[in-house]
Amino acid sequence: MISKLINEIKKKNAPIVVGLDPQLGFLPKKLMKAGIREYGKSLEAVAAAVFEFNKAIIDATCDLIPAVKPQVAMYEQFGVSGLVAFRETVEYAKSKGLIVIGDIKRGDIGSTSGAYAVGHIGTIQVEGETFAPFDEDMVTVNPYLGSDGVKPFIQVCNENDRGIFVLVKTSNPSSGEFQDREIDGRPLYELVGEQVAAWGEESMDGDYSNVGAVVGATYPEQGRVLRKLMPKTYILVPGYGAQGGQGKDLVDFFNEDGLGAIINSSRGIIAAYTKSEYAKFGEEHFADASRQAVVDMLDDIRGALGSK
Amino acid sequence: MISKLINEIKKKNAPIVVGLDPQLGFLPKKLMKAGIREYGKSLEAVAAAVFEFNKAIIDATCDLIPAVKPQVAMYEQFGVSGLVAFRETVEYAKSKGLIVIGDIKRGDIGSTSGAYAVGHIGTIQVEGETFAPFDEDMVTVNPYLGSDGVKPFIQVCNENDRGIFVLVKTSNPSSGEFQDREIDGRPLYELVGEQVAAWGEESMDGDYSNVGAVVGATYPEQGRVLRKLMPKTYILVPGYGAQGGQGKDLVDFFNEDGLGAIINSSRGIIAAYTKSEYAKFGEEHFADASRQAVVDMLDDIRGALGSK
Repeated sequence: MISKLINEIKKKNAPIVVGLDPQLGFLPKKLMKAGIREYGKSLEAVAAAVFEFNKAIIDATCDLIPAVKPQVAMYEQFGVSGLVAFRETVEYAKSKGLIVIGDIKRGDIGSTSGAYAVGHIGTIQVEGETFAPFDEDMVTVNPYLGSDGVKPFIQVCNENDRGIFVLVKTSNPSSGEFQDREIDGRPLYELVGEQVAAWGEESMDGDYSNVGAVVGATYPEQGRVLRKLMPKTYILVPGYGAQGGQGKDLVDFFNEDGLGAIINSSRGIIAAYTKSEYAKFGEEHFADASRQAVVDMLDDIRGALGSK
Repeated sequence: MISKLINEIKKKNAPIVVGLDPQLGFLPKKLMKAGIREYGKSLEAVAAAVFEFNKAIIDATCDLIPAVKPQVAMYEQFGVSGLVAFRETVEYAKSKGLIVIGDIKRGDIGSTSGAYAVGHIGTIQVEGETFAPFDEDMVTVNPYLGSDGVKPFIQVCNENDRGIFVLVKTSNPSSGEFQDREIDGRPLYELVGEQVAAWGEESMDGDYSNVGAVVGATYPEQGRVLRKLMPKTYILVPGYGAQGGQGKDLVDFFNEDGLGAIINSSRGIIAAYTKSEYAKFGEEHFADASRQAVVDMLDDIRGALGSK
């Protein structure tokens, strides 16, 4: 799967991914009204609006980007209806040629992690029929439970040609509380990074592994260290834009081959129309604002990489 | 919420919780056939069988136990239909007076953790109407992202009188890979435990906090240390039965007041009918086998606690 993602990144010259993280406050009034007209004041109405919102953003940006990353929490907040919209979003994005990274941050023990893997990147047999429940291409995974929490995902990656990104150093302010604590003179995130590189050997796909890592854009120095520690690991980098990361901070997340990292922006793209820079588009043309925000993000990142 | 759980534990003299973790292999043929008759070979058919399975087990055990713990991974593996069964199970268990602990092990950054909290233990407003998406009473939370991943859950606990259990030392064989690594001479799980106790101060409810901890039955020595380190923290203890824990190993998870821990068994109860001990019940009477397994588990644990 990682080689497929790399091909798309190269083809579009775009090492970026758009985070589809809908919040009630971002949904244009017109879409909410249409949802309520059809389903009444309900979670179904919100879910319908969410899917229409995502669909318009996917349509407006799919020629520019290789992948989208729906954050499942933002769908779970709307209950079962939200997960219907999540499933529809995955399917629609794939129909437009995009790779879908489910930002699910799951992690549990043995057979339970296996069940998450089946649900999100695997298939399940019911009396001889095969079903792919949520059918993402790649997902994010939490490493706190150790190898027997992660390996069931790797097994499904190998069976189904899928990929994962394991949390190593997250983008949030308090990520250091546990991740930065020193063990034998080195921070925990480095040990997790080394383990990710070791797990990655079990699922190589070309020059890179289907087992990637998550390292926040807000921690460029740690990114530099981790880049060297995990040379064959693709790094998914959240925290660009709204969380404060900029193109110039991200250069060292990439390898010398110009590959090795994919930068996510969520609010900065999908809620672009709410920002003063893109206010001229107006709420009506929210998807055009998102497209312009993608163009600007690509300029920033290509510029930074060009000057590497 | 923790005081409500404690009341139920005292009333039933039962510091246990039944894990509702359905797997395809546990579902009696009769229930699967009924599902397929109604929905064809589909995930809907499986989900219908899962709900009937849970319902029968809840009916057969609800007078003996204070709580159930559905493991959401085992529902997510069946996609949206599985989550419908999860939602129905939560609702049905609550209608029978049981407290529902959603074993979801979620954890993300700021607003994203907030979205998980809203979806599982909170409420959401849509144009003035209030909805409780999944509506569990308590959930499990992963601490790897630090305070800003956990505090949004605590906020929702305080707003809605709900509770959480934060992963500290998990029951699986490889939990030590990261959790046992030494930081300033002490294992990571102790630092997480101290942090859980500190977070707990923000949500006290009687003698205990709405912020509990998860510590595996398979690590009784670590349980003993953590018990002392987190005196006001309720400990949810998985790993009894199928994973190897026994009543006598669990005594030190409890405080001197006889409270402070709740022991989970999943497969040992719900799949009791598949074990030689309970084979006499037969597949047809799987729920009676589950009831007998609860009675036996209670004997074991009460016996062990009585001899403390």
